[in-house]
Amino acid sequence: MHKRLILSLITKKKNSLFHYSFNTPNFQLLPKIVKRRVYALKRLQLQSANIEAKFYEEVHELERKYAGLYQPIFDKRRDIVAGAIEPTDEECEWQSDREEEELAEDLQKKAALEEKQADSAGADDPKGVPEFWLTIFKRVDMLAEMLQEHDEPILKHLQDITVKFSEPGQPMSFTLEFHFEQNSHFSNTVLTKVYKMKSEPDAEDPFSFEGPEIIDCEGCKIDWQKGKDVTVRIVKKKQKHKGRGTVRTVTKEVPQDSFFNFFSPVKGKRKCDLDLTLATDFEIGHFFRERVIPRAVLYFTGEALEDDESYNSKLLCVIQDLDEEGEEEDEGEFDPTVSI
Amino acid sequence: MHKRLILSLITKKKNSLFHYSFNTPNFQLLPKIVKRRVYALKRLQLQSANIEAKFYEEVHELERKYAGLYQPIFDKRRDIVAGAIEPTDEECEWQSDREEEELAEDLQKKAALEEKQADSAGADDPKGVPEFWLTIFKRVDMLAEMLQEHDEPILKHLQDITVKFSEPGQPMSFTLEFHFEQNSHFSNTVLTKVYKMKSEPDAEDPFSFEGPEIIDCEGCKIDWQKGKDVTVRIVKKKQKHKGRGTVRTVTKEVPQDSFFNFFSPVKGKRKCDLDLTLATDFEIGHFFRERVIPRAVLYFTGEALEDDESYNSKLLCVIQDLDEEGEEEDEGEFDPTVSI
Repeated sequence: MHKRLILSLITKKKNSLFHYSFNTPNFQLLPKIVKRRVYALKRLQLQSANIEAKFYEEVHELERKYAGLYQPIFDKRRDIVAGAIEPTDEECEWQSDREEEELAEDLQKKAALEEKQADSAGADDPKGVPEFWLTIFKRVDMLAEMLQEHDEPILKHLQDITVKFSEPGQPMSFTLEFHFEQNSHFSNTVLTKVYKMKSEPDAEDPFSFEGPEIIDCEGCKIDWQKGKDVTVRIVKKKQKHKGRGTVRTVTKEVPQDSFFNFFSPVKGKRKCDLDLTLATDFEIGHFFRERVIPRAVLYFTGEALEDDESYNSKLLCVIQDLDEEGEEEDEGEFDPTVSI
Repeated sequence: MHKRLILSLITKKKNSLFHYSFNTPNFQLLPKIVKRRVYALKRLQLQSANIEAKFYEEVHELERKYAGLYQPIFDKRRDIVAGAIEPTDEECEWQSDREEEELAEDLQKKAALEEKQADSAGADDPKGVPEFWLTIFKRVDMLAEMLQEHDEPILKHLQDITVKFSEPGQPMSFTLEFHFEQNSHFSNTVLTKVYKMKSEPDAEDPFSFEGPEIIDCEGCKIDWQKGKDVTVRIVKKKQKHKGRGTVRTVTKEVPQDSFFNFFSPVKGKRKCDLDLTLATDFEIGHFFRERVIPRAVLYFTGEALEDDESYNSKLLCVIQDLDEEGEEEDEGEFDPTVSI
């Protein structure tokens, strides 16, 4: 399901451009009476599109229902990761024999040694699975690209990522929730990002409908502790007084790369011409929802990475394309060495 | 939904190869107590996979339900295409103003002229929408690649393509049905192709599960009229008698390219080493089910082609890859000029 949506996001832009130039030539050469029948077929196709929209609404309902079924499993995952519960021996049984077999023998020895070291070093008894989510961020290319060194200490406090679906009867949406333990960086315990969806055929272009699409998103305000906001950095700027020729130094906050830019700007603040960046944002939100949240442990161990290889490489192409087009708005004018 | 499945088919092969080599190194370095917890998380992940399988079963049920809702529309389409019913004026209303606008003016004039000619030429009153399905075959690259000149007269008799889903409680499958009017080529009125699906996690590799997959397919026997089978051609072969040195000419049926090879071989006859060709076959079956059947008129007019561009180009890459690997089994030994 997720891959369908992604592709529909990618192909959507082009459709509208070519929609009319494509269909006409041959069609116009048909006898009038046949053309008339084809119009009747197109009207039938509209009916199909409306039925399809209802189908996707029912699928969304199913997803809500299943979210409830997954929840106890995700809750348990969270508790094990956080160290709130210790799984029983039975719950930890895993026929790792085969995995061990595949390990080259010398690697095995090395591992045994380092494991011993790790065990004694970690004699202070690690709590739960340390850096579970941070490790996932580092391992998944799409997330690693957003991750900056200054984000890492903060993400060590990330305890869970969950998804909430819109209630029935409400406009379709889903909300990613990033749950943090108390930390010295910000006072929020949950950071949220809402993705709004549209699941009916567009009146202007009904035939391009292929199921729900993300159409908008909204971050949240992060209540940074004083001086802890990693999405900005302080630069010193020298200003020359035009008349007197004296120079003074002023400090200024300028944006800097950070995963936490994912939560800004909040609604309405986004520039209208950033459609392409929005598309990237949608991909990432969708990736959290459909891949990272449902199978986090497989990203932690690396098992899910190969599954996603073709998926990621396609996305990365798109993201790179988008980056190139938007590049001119980065940095540059804020560089303190340039100004005087 | 369809694109998800396609991608899962494409990526599947690789997964099993890398599954174990990928996940171990870092993981092995974790302290034993943490590793133990991660095994617990993996067991939880297995539970998720089983719930996911149930989700997809319910989606399949929904698809069955909606197939029933689409059916009256598809029936009407079939009747209009075949000329069995003439749509009312109201049913043919279409605001084609915008489409006309976009037509360059000279193209419009040309079209008007040719339309007139077509109308008078077609004074014999074309029935329904002539060559509706054949036109679709010609316009869609993936189908056009299978289409041979000798297939075209036969496909003019194709009146409908439908899909049937397996009954609840039965193993998951879908059947493509190609409905033909009476013709001089074969006596079947329906040619069928069944695609069998698997919708539970593989015991060997449960984490690779991403929803139903096509696992097998089965064509049908075509009862060709004598001498009309387009999937073979008669070649003359000269044979030299080893002892006497005399030469005689024998005739032999050899396979030739045709869309109708899509229906063969019937179950069990396919060679085991043709996995890759099977993958191509699965893509095509899936494409009929998810794209061509639900939105046939848009392929007829060309409107759906642009939507599929990125989809097709990806598929074609795969198909080409597969073709190259399988090439050596084509032709060659059957070439009559080589043998003596």
